[in-house]
Amino acid sequence: MLKAAVLGGSGYTGSELLRLLQQHPQVKITAATSERFSGSFISDQFLNFRDTNLRFEPLQLKYLVKKADLFFLCLPHKTSQEVVAFLNKADKKVIDLSADYRLKNASVYTKWYNTPHMYPTLLKKTVYGLPEIHRDKIRQASIVANPGCYPASAILGLAPIMGKGFINVDSIIIDSKSGVSGAGRNPAQPFMFSEVNESVKAYAVTVHRHKPEIEQEISFLSKKKIKIIFTPHLVPMDRGILSTIYVQMGSKEKVSLSYVQKIYQDFYTKEPFVRVLKNGVYPTTKAVKGSNFCDLSVFLDKHTNREQTLIIVSVIDNLIKGASGQAVQNMNIMYGFDETAGLMSPPPCP
Amino acid sequence: MLKAAVLGGSGYTGSELLRLLQQHPQVKITAATSERFSGSFISDQFLNFRDTNLRFEPLQLKYLVKKADLFFLCLPHKTSQEVVAFLNKADKKVIDLSADYRLKNASVYTKWYNTPHMYPTLLKKTVYGLPEIHRDKIRQASIVANPGCYPASAILGLAPIMGKGFINVDSIIIDSKSGVSGAGRNPAQPFMFSEVNESVKAYAVTVHRHKPEIEQEISFLSKKKIKIIFTPHLVPMDRGILSTIYVQMGSKEKVSLSYVQKIYQDFYTKEPFVRVLKNGVYPTTKAVKGSNFCDLSVFLDKHTNREQTLIIVSVIDNLIKGASGQAVQNMNIMYGFDETAGLMSPPPCP
Amino acid sequence: MLKAAVLGGSGYTGSELLRLLQQHPQVKITAATSERFSGSFISDQFLNFRDTNLRFEPLQLKYLVKKADLFFLCLPHKTSQEVVAFLNKADKKVIDLSADYRLKNASVYTKWYNTPHMYPTLLKKTVYGLPEIHRDKIRQASIVANPGCYPASAILGLAPIMGKGFINVDSIIIDSKSGVSGAGRNPAQPFMFSEVNESVKAYAVTVHRHKPEIEQEISFLSKKKIKIIFTPHLVPMDRGILSTIYVQMGSKEKVSLSYVQKIYQDFYTKEPFVRVLKNGVYPTTKAVKGSNFCDLSVFLDKHTNREQTLIIVSVIDNLIKGASGQAVQNMNIMYGFDETAGLMSPPPCP
Amino acid sequence: MLKAAVLGGSGYTGSELLRLLQQHPQVKITAATSERFSGSFISDQFLNFRDTNLRFEPLQLKYLVKKADLFFLCLPHKTSQEVVAFLNKADKKVIDLSADYRLKNASVYTKWYNTPHMYPTLLKKTVYGLPEIHRDKIRQASIVANPGCYPASAILGLAPIMGKGFINVDSIIIDSKSGVSGAGRNPAQPFMFSEVNESVKAYAVTVHRHKPEIEQEISFLSKKKIKIIFTPHLVPMDRGILSTIYVQMGSKEKVSLSYVQKIYQDFYTKEPFVRVLKNGVYPTTKAVKGSNFCDLSVFLDKHTNREQTLIIVSVIDNLIKGASGQAVQNMNIMYGFDETAGLMSPPPCP
Repeated sequence: MLKAAVLGGSGYTGSELLRLLQQHPQVKITAATSERFSGSFISDQFLNFRDTNLRFEPLQLKYLVKKADLFFLCLPHKTSQEVVAFLNKADKKVIDLSADYRLKNASVYTKWYNTPHMYPTLLKKTVYGLPEIHRDKIRQASIVANPGCYPASAILGLAPIMGKGFINVDSIIIDSKSGVSGAGRNPAQPFMFSEVNESVKAYAVTVHRHKPEIEQEISFLSKKKIKIIFTPHLVPMDRGILSTIYVQMGSKEKVSLSYVQKIYQDFYTKEPFVRVLKNGVYPTTKAVKGSNFCDLSVFLDKHTNREQTLIIVSVIDNLIKGASGQAVQNMNIMYGFDETAGLMSPPPCP
Repeated sequence: MLKAAVLGGSGYTGSELLRLLQQHPQVKITAATSERFSGSFISDQFLNFRDTNLRFEPLQLKYLVKKADLFFLCLPHKTSQEVVAFLNKADKKVIDLSADYRLKNASVYTKWYNTPHMYPTLLKKTVYGLPEIHRDKIRQASIVANPGCYPASAILGLAPIMGKGFINVDSIIIDSKSGVSGAGRNPAQPFMFSEVNESVKAYAVTVHRHKPEIEQEISFLSKKKIKIIFTPHLVPMDRGILSTIYVQMGSKEKVSLSYVQKIYQDFYTKEPFVRVLKNGVYPTTKAVKGSNFCDLSVFLDKHTNREQTLIIVSVIDNLIKGASGQAVQNMNIMYGFDETAGLMSPPPCP
Repeated sequence: MLKAAVLGGSGYTGSELLRLLQQHPQVKITAATSERFSGSFISDQFLNFRDTNLRFEPLQLKYLVKKADLFFLCLPHKTSQEVVAFLNKADKKVIDLSADYRLKNASVYTKWYNTPHMYPTLLKKTVYGLPEIHRDKIRQASIVANPGCYPASAILGLAPIMGKGFINVDSIIIDSKSGVSGAGRNPAQPFMFSEVNESVKAYAVTVHRHKPEIEQEISFLSKKKIKIIFTPHLVPMDRGILSTIYVQMGSKEKVSLSYVQKIYQDFYTKEPFVRVLKNGVYPTTKAVKGSNFCDLSVFLDKHTNREQTLIIVSVIDNLIKGASGQAVQNMNIMYGFDETAGLMSPPPCP
Repeated sequence: MLKAAVLGGSGYTGSELLRLLQQHPQVKITAATSERFSGSFISDQFLNFRDTNLRFEPLQLKYLVKKADLFFLCLPHKTSQEVVAFLNKADKKVIDLSADYRLKNASVYTKWYNTPHMYPTLLKKTVYGLPEIHRDKIRQASIVANPGCYPASAILGLAPIMGKGFINVDSIIIDSKSGVSGAGRNPAQPFMFSEVNESVKAYAVTVHRHKPEIEQEISFLSKKKIKIIFTPHLVPMDRGILSTIYVQMGSKEKVSLSYVQKIYQDFYTKEPFVRVLKNGVYPTTKAVKGSNFCDLSVFLDKHTNREQTLIIVSVIDNLIKGASGQAVQNMNIMYGFDETAGLMSPPPCP
């Protein structure tokens, strides 16, 4: 059994990760930290947790380092920087769910997160943990940076066509709608029930931190420096992200919808967690709620004065494929487990 | 007192209209029809209705025509065609909340609604009831076609910059998010609570009937035939539409955010129901829920490889500025009432 | 125009009160306080507010006392004690929406609120502001203690039968379900969206502070010291309280449902804001959302081995009849205005 | 592998059952019926379903009877009567999730369901499928009547104290709050999103069909004919039932809260799916959402003029412990599987 520790286990991402790890056949959770709930049983804080013996403990790295072989970090960004470095030095494997190691370029990190990155060399050996793109590198990685929730939905929606000549890579617009759990568990007035219930809003327009992350990965895929427009929205539901992605066709080729659909189906044909839906079926966040799946549909708008526009709709559960489920999938790859181990329980619906 | 009748008063649009008319100082509701509730008191069907003497009656035009001077039609499209014609012939004024008279071009109507339009000459005399654009014509109109809910939010978001040389009119993308009441009150499985709750979905991608309506009006404003991309989404809340609108700048001019904001403020400076929010304030559907207001914010994305992109966020209450409140505003204009009469009760929040 | 001030105007109760006062034909809001938003326009904090000139100011009593004749207090309990005393000494009228002056007996207050009451003599001259019971005294009052939200729904549900010989006053059980706005606007983890959404819970079982308040008023009505069982629940919606009240019949008389219904109808026949629904119609919180109405239905359960049990279902909007609308109604009575002034705008539905 | 069929698989109960069976290590789903979706893949109708080869088929018993050894019936009541009889005659085991075989007394069935029961002898051999009460009989049963959702929450809340001398069995009041999925999946206006969202209502007061079912079981437990008061409520959420149960103490004994808590802990100490929460912890439906657990808390109200009152709060997921999970648990018992098999996946939260 792989001994795994979860550092920062009392937020939504941490508790979801504990839940998933606990049903994993090859993993034993040997430690979980929480400053806030230190000393109390996890199953007292999270009644959906089944193991009734495990307690939260404080984040004392020197002590914790001996307790596990793999460390999942659900710590705030900035905090994570140092913890990753410490664990890496101790030869432990790390899957970091914070944003600290996602951006390859330290100066881009500094610009978007307003803080220097102290470990640029570690950035280089870190692998961005989206298996549909970097599976082989994840297999060898000692540090995996787990993708942000919006980037997971957006990159999976775009990956099959990046690098294809028929799209205009400079035309990409990503309009995303997220449930409220993405804002985390700390009390804050804007996320109080009566503030967000029965309302939709856009936020962080043009300035959201997930933007450079999306750009980095789709630039990598198309081998060209791409800039996108990205607008996140808050929607009154617990979980789920739906990204509606607009990509203009380049002028040279004329492609058909069925041609593009085939590209998507082929790209994801062996992927266990990405489903390209049949023609005319609309993805809903409810259909992937509680699962590690990403559902995709592709549409082609010809009724324009410009080039045809491709519209891709991508849905995930922000806490699973957008965070903790993705982390478990990465672990499965790193340790040679079945990639779907612990991730195939069909979720309740509705 | 103006005698007004509401034909089709038992759906969400009809009942909302009855509610608004009832608090209007210069209007007396003299008839309201409903096949379904015919014979029963309105206040028994809608407990928020205050007048306890008015009953629903069946749609018998020959009898009804004498009972009012102004007729609001909340009937299904196709049905409305004939009723408008009948009332017009009887020299009655009509505000039609269906889609039947919104599209000027009968063949466009036929294409999108799969049915011929029998009264193309009436189409010509009908005025599209968006006062911010057609106020003077509404004043003289005998038939007003009340805008669709999505078009109201989209056109108000775009109007100030249509015809401006600095935008690329062929680049417009409108991504709209709507509450569930927009789907109407008739029972249908896709809108059952447990189907739409805790979920977001896109629907009618590239084929929604509000698309030609938006195109017609912004083409009118820019004196050029425009085609748009329009994607509606369903969001788990009762009311509200938020449209996120993307417009690429044309290459010739370089404009600043403050320049564009000033254009918006100037355009709407005398409008009683459109508020251009201060820089950095995000519109929410909750802030306009229950009111006839449209709130707008403008953003400029410079972080692109293409021309700068303008992002406009527009929110309305789909049942008020998107339907019944708009109809009352049109009535106020047609009859020379104060344009805000009956529409300024501040709504409950949260 | 009556000059009115709202002290503590930035919570849900305060902002709702400002909204209602603003549409009142005989009132001018001359001051509104908020420590948090001091200096900013009310209409910037609450976009549903129409007057765009009024600013929040700090709570400086010596200065404020001159600005108004009537003071509404939406301050935290304990704080209110002193402010009421100050304003009363200055010969100003006060409607206190806190709990500080609701309990006649200072020692009961001390027991339930864990703090002494410094002004027991003021308690004596304070009138409990439920017009359906104390209308005549409210007319003369200089201090009105506005009822709590749960008590408003419960007492209105029970009032018609208190003092009737046919009920067993020692059998009363009140099971209440409330929307989340009742918990106030300050950030707190238990009321974060993702904590309360999609969940129901009971809380403060046997120990909620509204219990002695209900007991005081129904004891007054029945001229006998009554103790009740009261269980509040939290329900995932913005507004509304539904109380299901169980009262066993006393053994002596046998009464019929129609007899009891008549008692309810007679009791409330002249009340502008209480509706006894027709036989078989179920009250819903949605039907009173946004209004000052209380809807009631009565049922009789004969299928028991005990005496027959009366089941009363009572619904109100917790922020209106349960708080701010009630305060406006009290003001109307105190100043001889039409009792429904400013309170009859039919609310949006759904 | 046990071959199991689900008759009526396209409602919420049926699809949830298919989901649970599919992750069961000892079961193979060999047939699932749906008139509506006959011919289509289950995984096309329910995207959370993982097996992509199974199709819905029509309800042709003569053909179906050979396909499985155990039949789960999620058919409408009345329909189920005959199907159970047919399968029983064919020596197949049946778990009936309809109400048809829950009431032992055919005349009680006739009274509450307005239809005669054609198989009173089968009623006698049917076992009521609540393992916490009838485990031994379930083990031997060929027909199991799976409990209703409200009864499951209520009976589990009451079982430990039924038959104890210290309670007054004639005083029981059950006030239940349910999510909307309990109303089923067929389109009906009262359960449309905009009708039930943001609202609470009571319904079927004194006349709900789950009442005789609760009475039958608690009468069995206390060996005395008991009648209860039961009031169901509809709450705007997908899943969950919370029952607040009031039981007056009998006059003879004086018991303490800790004494009662110990009775509950002892009664459920070996039960895998019932958790008696620690003193002061409130059950929430969210904590059991997606699981087969029932969480219970007990409170004692001494502040009364009557005997002390016990307040029990009981929560379940109405589709799992209240329907399909319960059915799987019954199957596990009937076939000697581990009683928790297929039921211990920790559910997502929030």
